[in-house]
Amino acid sequence: MSSSNGVEIDFEHGHEQHGHEQHGHEQHGHEQHGHEQHGHEQHGHEQHGHEQPVCGRLTDAPTWIIDPIDGTVNFVHRFPFVAISIAFAVNKQTEFGLVYSCVEDKLYSAQRGRGAFLNGVPLHTSRQEDVNQCLVVTEIGAERDDLALYTMTSNIMRLLQLPVHGVRAVGTAAVDMCLVATGGADVYYHIGMHCWDIAASAIIVQEAGGVVIDTDGSEFDMMSRKVIAASSLAVANRIAGVVQAFPCRRDDVDPPKCSTAGCMRLQSPGRPALRGAAARGSRQQQTARTT
Amino acid sequence: MSSSNGVEIDFEHGHEQHGHEQHGHEQHGHEQHGHEQHGHEQHGHEQHGHEQPVCGRLTDAPTWIIDPIDGTVNFVHRFPFVAISIAFAVNKQTEFGLVYSCVEDKLYSAQRGRGAFLNGVPLHTSRQEDVNQCLVVTEIGAERDDLALYTMTSNIMRLLQLPVHGVRAVGTAAVDMCLVATGGADVYYHIGMHCWDIAASAIIVQEAGGVVIDTDGSEFDMMSRKVIAASSLAVANRIAGVVQAFPCRRDDVDPPKCSTAGCMRLQSPGRPALRGAAARGSRQQQTARTT
Repeated sequence: MSSSNGVEIDFEHGHEQHGHEQHGHEQHGHEQHGHEQHGHEQHGHEQHGHEQPVCGRLTDAPTWIIDPIDGTVNFVHRFPFVAISIAFAVNKQTEFGLVYSCVEDKLYSAQRGRGAFLNGVPLHTSRQEDVNQCLVVTEIGAERDDLALYTMTSNIMRLLQLPVHGVRAVGTAAVDMCLVATGGADVYYHIGMHCWDIAASAIIVQEAGGVVIDTDGSEFDMMSRKVIAASSLAVANRIAGVVQAFPCRRDDVDPPKCSTAGCMRLQSPGRPALRGAAARGSRQQQTARTT
Repeated sequence: MSSSNGVEIDFEHGHEQHGHEQHGHEQHGHEQHGHEQHGHEQHGHEQHGHEQPVCGRLTDAPTWIIDPIDGTVNFVHRFPFVAISIAFAVNKQTEFGLVYSCVEDKLYSAQRGRGAFLNGVPLHTSRQEDVNQCLVVTEIGAERDDLALYTMTSNIMRLLQLPVHGVRAVGTAAVDMCLVATGGADVYYHIGMHCWDIAASAIIVQEAGGVVIDTDGSEFDMMSRKVIAASSLAVANRIAGVVQAFPCRRDDVDPPKCSTAGCMRLQSPGRPALRGAAARGSRQQQTARTT
């Protein structure tokens, strides 16, 4: 695999796959926007192996970690930040990542040790060391229980009291993190996202000179569902000292047989389990309809 | 004045002007980004009359309401949402508005009774009537006293508990409101912005079929520093029933002689008053440096 962005990858067969199911994405509501169904077949992923993804624990096997639509709520609303995220890991280490921000027509890419690029142009973080000079990006509304909401809003308040320059939320974790890689934002943090949301953009930030850690200050763990991506270790550590996490089941704990940990969390009482990217968008619409 | 967007305006001389001062924008910090100073001369506004703007009360006189850089914090960080906002009012009623989202190269425009356009293509809101189906846009971090921060974060929490689909914050009020005009978002609300942030985009939302009211549910008042722009009156009223305002001095109360109400608010102890668009960006950086 090669591209004009400096990414050239050789891989062997026998890959595993994390991420959204390969069924077609259901569109609930907003049909008036004329969105078409997006299925696995349309993205051509079946060439990489399993008809059904292997969800749950990350192994040493070559593994694809894919989100065909990151920013699903944006997608159904036509809010202009939606991305495709593709990462490839071997021995639990991401070897390359691609994030395509579709509406913006921006392709972010990185391969381990070879730098990060936006449409072929090298990327560098802001290298900001002072948290008080930082523009922060996060996500608002992915988690809805009261504790998660309280923690999320309290985190924003504490950051603004530090102060940081501002907080932004554009609705897609993959693009959020890539904005840190461009230097347009200095920090991204999030509790509750999934591995497929940030696997690709994490290596893009790292290859752009940034730092990716857990929100508790420990080493980045793709399956922990907690992440800080920052312009420097100093800033990352300061943010880790401010933001608090709410309980959030890891992506690799007790995965259900045919779905992901995240998918189980999205199951609505009295309804069949929703799965994958469509579930995240549909879940809120279903919640709205049943409230 | 005419454009390909359906805007054709005749105006007479003797105009007043609200908005940011006509001095060059100072850039504090972030010089490494290579931003050049942006002055009034570069925007060519002097052709419309006063060398110094008339700030404060909106009169019946033909009045320009201009923000040369909306999204100043974004601008200094190179976060990709920055806009120029130009409105023209007669008898306190906005006759036309233009918002140019510079990085996106999107020109939003509207003239009273002639519709709203994005790069010449007619705009329509989503017409959403159900608040539970709404994607909401707001701003985070413009106001920093504890009451404002608490109210702002509490508003977000209550909205997510309704629930709405999600909350986004891109860092420029003018573009936020135009996203409602496109249907990409269903609601924008904000407490603390200034008339020059939303004068142009308010008529763009209205001409796209949307509704603009005060956050207390009353008629839109450009100088009140409180606004809801929504896809429908039903949604606007539901949002008005949820969001709370914090005390915020009107744009037309006790204006200082040579500046705006907003500018006075930005004055830092021991430092000269910061003025205009640059002040809003610089203020937070100055605060950071002295904290």
